[in-house]
Amino acid sequence: MSLFSSRYFMSQALKEAERAYAEDEVPVGAIVVKNKRIIARAHNQVERLKDPTAHAEILAVTQAASYLGNKWLKGCCLYVTIEPCLMCAYAMILARIEGLFFAASDEKTGAFGSKLDITKIKFNHSLKVKKGIMAAEASSLMKRFFEKKRKQKKGLLWV
Amino acid sequence: MSLFSSRYFMSQALKEAERAYAEDEVPVGAIVVKNKRIIARAHNQVERLKDPTAHAEILAVTQAASYLGNKWLKGCCLYVTIEPCLMCAYAMILARIEGLFFAASDEKTGAFGSKLDITKIKFNHSLKVKKGIMAAEASSLMKRFFEKKRKQKKGLLWV
Repeated sequence: MSLFSSRYFMSQALKEAERAYAEDEVPVGAIVVKNKRIIARAHNQVERLKDPTAHAEILAVTQAASYLGNKWLKGCCLYVTIEPCLMCAYAMILARIEGLFFAASDEKTGAFGSKLDITKIKFNHSLKVKKGIMAAEASSLMKRFFEKKRKQKKGLLWV
Repeated sequence: MSLFSSRYFMSQALKEAERAYAEDEVPVGAIVVKNKRIIARAHNQVERLKDPTAHAEILAVTQAASYLGNKWLKGCCLYVTIEPCLMCAYAMILARIEGLFFAASDEKTGAFGSKLDITKIKFNHSLKVKKGIMAAEASSLMKRFFEKKRKQKKGLLWV
């Protein structure tokens, strides 16, 4: 896998998702890339922080803005393992993110074509979207997570 | 004005908006109320934190969840001076906020009837919405803010 390819960057987002999995969080990971450099890495921390807004994408946007010292992430792309929800989708528009790459779709809450399609609404900023890179890996991690959760609930696993 | 009335709570959100104004931030304030007690107070801090996600509502939701030690803000109402954007609207759904009160509408980006109406989309949680309380006060503060900004741009004010 060549460095600086979309696949390489998505594999880095997947590493973050695996960290979330290890911490018993819904396994979603995100990174922000500017000029082929990763400037933010984050994973879902809703349970740890007990914060419903602590999605991987929100944390990555906040980190990237802090790194750049600018509320607008011009020229930045965000890679995330699962299709973003509406909160994260609009956060990316607010942040002027240029491009979004997501791996697996989220039929229940995805805001880029699944539950609804935010790109169909005209705002003062629009972003390019590409989906599907490493989708199988991202959704298999999700499946493993929810199977683990079901087993925990049934008392078959003590973790 | 009686304590514990919606008007009283909105006046407290307005106080937060005035703090934002004093800090040269777009003047939006929000509070979260549970059992008639204010458990979070926040105002827009996008410029200070250089964080596009630091809207008053997001900060108030995070604060309230931290106070309750729970990612779900059951039985909580959020009061905000301006109609929330899509990011904040969906954050409230994620947080299971019970009721939303907002003062003035935001024609450009409001997600509760202005730019679009998120309550028309079926999610696994819905919230009751009431708008209009102290709308004149909230929108007059916004007007004053943008007039000040225009004057600053023209070099008529040195602040």
